Amino acid sequence: MHTTSNLEEVIIVALYSAFVTYDEEADAKFQTNQTNPMHNAVYRNYPFFIDIHFMIFVGFGCLLAFFRFYGFGGMVFNFLTATFAIQWAILVQGYFQFSHDSKIHLGVINLINAEFACAVVLISYGAVLGKTSPLQILVMALLEVPVFAVTEWVVLKYLKINDAGGSILIHLFACYFGLGVTFVLYRPSLNEGHAKENTSYHSDILCLMGTLFLWVFWGLSASTLTAFALSAMLNKNGKLTMADIQNVTLAGGVTVGASVDMMISPVAAYALGVIGCIACMLGYKYLSPILARHLRIQDQCGIHNLHGLTGLISCTAGICAILTASEEVYGPSFYEIFAHRAPVEGDPKLQELRMVIPGLKAGLGRTAQKQALFQVAAIFSTIGLSALGGILTGFLLRLPYFASPSDDFCFDDKPFFEVPPDYDSPVRLKHSNTNSVEDSTV
Amino acid sequence: MHTTSNLEEVIIVALYSAFVTYDEEADAKFQTNQTNPMHNAVYRNYPFFIDIHFMIFVGFGCLLAFFRFYGFGGMVFNFLTATFAIQWAILVQGYFQFSHDSKIHLGVINLINAEFACAVVLISYGAVLGKTSPLQILVMALLEVPVFAVTEWVVLKYLKINDAGGSILIHLFACYFGLGVTFVLYRPSLNEGHAKENTSYHSDILCLMGTLFLWVFWGLSASTLTAFALSAMLNKNGKLTMADIQNVTLAGGVTVGASVDMMISPVAAYALGVIGCIACMLGYKYLSPILARHLRIQDQCGIHNLHGLTGLISCTAGICAILTASEEVYGPSFYEIFAHRAPVEGDPKLQELRMVIPGLKAGLGRTAQKQALFQVAAIFSTIGLSALGGILTGFLLRLPYFASPSDDFCFDDKPFFEVPPDYDSPVRLKHSNTNSVEDSTV
Amino acid sequence: MHTTSNLEEVIIVALYSAFVTYDEEADAKFQTNQTNPMHNAVYRNYPFFIDIHFMIFVGFGCLLAFFRFYGFGGMVFNFLTATFAIQWAILVQGYFQFSHDSKIHLGVINLINAEFACAVVLISYGAVLGKTSPLQILVMALLEVPVFAVTEWVVLKYLKINDAGGSILIHLFACYFGLGVTFVLYRPSLNEGHAKENTSYHSDILCLMGTLFLWVFWGLSASTLTAFALSAMLNKNGKLTMADIQNVTLAGGVTVGASVDMMISPVAAYALGVIGCIACMLGYKYLSPILARHLRIQDQCGIHNLHGLTGLISCTAGICAILTASEEVYGPSFYEIFAHRAPVEGDPKLQELRMVIPGLKAGLGRTAQKQALFQVAAIFSTIGLSALGGILTGFLLRLPYFASPSDDFCFDDKPFFEVPPDYDSPVRLKHSNTNSVEDSTV
Repeated sequence: MHTTSNLEEVIIVALYSAFVTYDEEADAKFQTNQTNPMHNAVYRNYPFFIDIHFMIFVGFGCLLAFFRFYGFGGMVFNFLTATFAIQWAILVQGYFQFSHDSKIHLGVINLINAEFACAVVLISYGAVLGKTSPLQILVMALLEVPVFAVTEWVVLKYLKINDAGGSILIHLFACYFGLGVTFVLYRPSLNEGHAKENTSYHSDILCLMGTLFLWVFWGLSASTLTAFALSAMLNKNGKLTMADIQNVTLAGGVTVGASVDMMISPVAAYALGVIGCIACMLGYKYLSPILARHLRIQDQCGIHNLHGLTGLISCTAGICAILTASEEVYGPSFYEIFAHRAPVEGDPKLQELRMVIPGLKAGLGRTAQKQALFQVAAIFSTIGLSALGGILTGFLLRLPYFASPSDDFCFDDKPFFEVPPDYDSPVRLKHSNTNSVEDSTV
Repeated sequence: MHTTSNLEEVIIVALYSAFVTYDEEADAKFQTNQTNPMHNAVYRNYPFFIDIHFMIFVGFGCLLAFFRFYGFGGMVFNFLTATFAIQWAILVQGYFQFSHDSKIHLGVINLINAEFACAVVLISYGAVLGKTSPLQILVMALLEVPVFAVTEWVVLKYLKINDAGGSILIHLFACYFGLGVTFVLYRPSLNEGHAKENTSYHSDILCLMGTLFLWVFWGLSASTLTAFALSAMLNKNGKLTMADIQNVTLAGGVTVGASVDMMISPVAAYALGVIGCIACMLGYKYLSPILARHLRIQDQCGIHNLHGLTGLISCTAGICAILTASEEVYGPSFYEIFAHRAPVEGDPKLQELRMVIPGLKAGLGRTAQKQALFQVAAIFSTIGLSALGGILTGFLLRLPYFASPSDDFCFDDKPFFEVPPDYDSPVRLKHSNTNSVEDSTV
Repeated sequence: MHTTSNLEEVIIVALYSAFVTYDEEADAKFQTNQTNPMHNAVYRNYPFFIDIHFMIFVGFGCLLAFFRFYGFGGMVFNFLTATFAIQWAILVQGYFQFSHDSKIHLGVINLINAEFACAVVLISYGAVLGKTSPLQILVMALLEVPVFAVTEWVVLKYLKINDAGGSILIHLFACYFGLGVTFVLYRPSLNEGHAKENTSYHSDILCLMGTLFLWVFWGLSASTLTAFALSAMLNKNGKLTMADIQNVTLAGGVTVGASVDMMISPVAAYALGVIGCIACMLGYKYLSPILARHLRIQDQCGIHNLHGLTGLISCTAGICAILTASEEVYGPSFYEIFAHRAPVEGDPKLQELRMVIPGLKAGLGRTAQKQALFQVAAIFSTIGLSALGGILTGFLLRLPYFASPSDDFCFDDKPFFEVPPDYDSPVRLKHSNTNSVEDSTV
């Protein structure tokens, strides 16, 4: 691992030194002693930046630590991958989006964009959790970030869509990239069940803390109650299943994504959360086993349920919101939210509107129907590009150099970490490997 | 559980669709591209909102996970109850407080108020932790929120008191409601001790993390040092007791509540914290056992010590602060903090004051003594209404339909969750059930 | 413990009552109903204050809980010490820095300064973790805070240096004070290894959570990837060592400290992070064992690696940044960041500059070289004062009254806490004490 990691780092240092400088708001040269800190983006965005950081490093870290013998792996590889992905994304996204004067101007907004790219990588990682070496994960990040940046660039620059909540570019992209990778890395033996593929009392609690760390930043979520109710309903004894609570409670957040800046009514937001949650729960229960057995798609954390299905529902809702949006409901902010629907420069209607809304920017003069078509095009091109990128990445990851763990050592910290003395104490082992209970008489 | 939960949800959706709309500040119609985000309450209050969310879902969640075999229950039922209570409180409080034009205008301030109502429910829940089914807890929330809203409405609208820190309406209400419920749900056998009513090394640490998650938001607390000192002093070996550190260190926060917006001197704040902490500690040590044995009040988490005793001290301090407050100490903000003491409309003194403080609102012209009397009235009516509400709720919860766990299955996750394989490993069981040590030979 | 703790508290109350009042911004007298909350320091600094609080109580708490049988100790004594140190530092720092009109005006800025003093104490505590009684830690805090305040006062008032990131006054001071204490408290037997000086699977994860809780607030850190790569490289099996990830990933944050407000290029920041990380890692691997065996310095948490070595690198980088800083790069803020380089009052150059930068404050007219010399002087005097203070404190701590635990009871919660039933279950003990495996047949 070290050689690649070091190499990657040398390359990153070289690229930073060549291309990266500070944004004006972070640059002391542009600060005077009259500068009001509250008008400076560094101060204004700082709490949001910390929040996203917290979600990625602490929230995702705990959430991925649910395997009983792979707690170090889940948390530490999340840390490693996230750190690398953010740095790499600053460079790659900078190249695509911010390179006026051929320098990347490093401001808080770049960091936040890079954190979103990082979230994409971590979601995809969920599909192959416990089945990949750290080297494989780093290489996956190395490839996914540019594919993501290209997709982002194509979709935002040419298709010009509304995607404030990232339903298309974050959730759908991440999901289908991850599914592409895991499709190629298919391990038939894992369909028979794996002795270490389970949780412990403490790892379940840790994972639930991760859920809560994410949940608190996503605000009031209607889907949570649905998740609890469905979890009990679909269990044959009417009991709650921790995995449902750990995952499905988050489904609502994704589902509301695409219409997050639009004026959908509270009840519509509530209903959307409930629908997304039902789809996600049924996906875990019925769709995931089918994908694993019949389509060679072993989706370890069920990202297709939490990000794919909910992402599709979210996009559909977004399109409905676009088709029904009217200036009356949105008032002057209508052309700000749906910027592409503003009249083109030169259109007399633009002048008219500028009487009411001074400084209104010219748009593309799209109708609601036209905008909706572009949204659909964006969905399909994102799914296509991400799945293709994932499949190609998967083939690269199968190269023996990247040291994929054998089937026996999946979901296991031991190949990658110096483990503490209680790691494989008889009691810890006894209950995990149902086949060897007889052997481990204490 | 699912049926009720689903039913509740359908009702909530219906009520939301009928009555809830967005507040102007959250409504895009009222945003222009000239709107400065910092003047918008959504942005301004967002960090505070996240903080409260974090305290409720993560802080309370960890704090309630201290039982060795009820960690899932503590954390998950807190999550479930909090989610339900917030949504329900938005509706109920909206009906009482915000319904101009008979719609609830959903803004950040409503969410924050709903989170306080939610905190009330969770505090009360502490009295019956581990002894109730999730259905019972949901029904308790269903009833407690309206009783709370009515009490809030009566006290704030008719008695017009100062209660910025929520000592009366949050802590006293929550405490006596919870005691009312647990009084009715009395289980004689639990007074003999219960095999599962203990902690493990990890559950103690988890609970302490919960304490810290709450503590960091409550600022510098004088009571913490007192809590440490008393814990060692009252222990026969001079050792520290984790339960004291987990709970009593928080007592100071409650005690300072009632005078939190008043100008008490730092030393008075310090002394109050120390007094609250002593009362809380002695309550745990001596009062709780008496309540359990002689008054049928089995207060599982000791909410009477942490919220009742400290709340009463806090209210007393608040009344003292009111009686001693003078315009000289407070300056122009005097009539803002003690709004009811401002002269009534038409009083020449009001005109005079408006020379100095432009825009001063007319008040009720109350004297310090009169305001203090109203505070006392508020304390008694809050205790009365909450205890009565709690007792009635308790009787409803005893209906067999709500599936209260049997005595044997108290403090136990197993009736409600699919538990992981290590849940009842011999080692985990061995040390918890002192009666069956002989049986569980490994 | 209680007697001292109580005594300390009585003294603190007395001192608070005599000297402490509120700052104008926190004082209601100076608030009007025209006051814009965003211009009030209490509101503006609140999120930063909470962040620091979170780092100290939750982050440090988890980080210090890595010992298998000393998890309560690590977390609880951090809580106790931090609470005491903050209160004590407000008084001591107030005496030195804020006592206009011989009162301490308590504002958010004082709290933040006190939190830094508290961080100093906690870093030093890392050197003696698990080898000291709570009484000893409190006495250490009692002495370290005034020594720190004197050093701060001397260095800032007389040497007038740049130390925005606290490399000198926080990291170097804390490190050499701690090393001084542990030098005196040398325990020869611990060099042979101690049965309880190890981690468990859960304590390692808890500690890693602490790392992440700190890490998220320190922003993007280049050193993290280096830490991962070096950890694998220096391990004979190419595996990762949790202790490296828990500690060395934080090294970059310290290293960038001294130049944090200066305009070093992103690549220089990146390179600094990498260098600091390498030094820290090699320190853990090679230097710490030498210090323990040959210099009687048993540095339990390796603070010399994480704060000493990186602090020295950081200071060197800061001096380079000072020597190369020019007005062209910094623009008008040059004389704000390097305040001492502004011309003295009366210098015609000052008038000239004030044409461009209205309100520029007069400085000391230092050249870059002169300022660099003062920085060097500050480094040496800080190291000297802190090491001396630490050694003297160490001698005091050896007094039998302070109840230092015996060698056998190091890294052990049992002397200080009522422990839960599973604390010394055979399984927990079995794997920790390699000498007694035979005895603990289950």
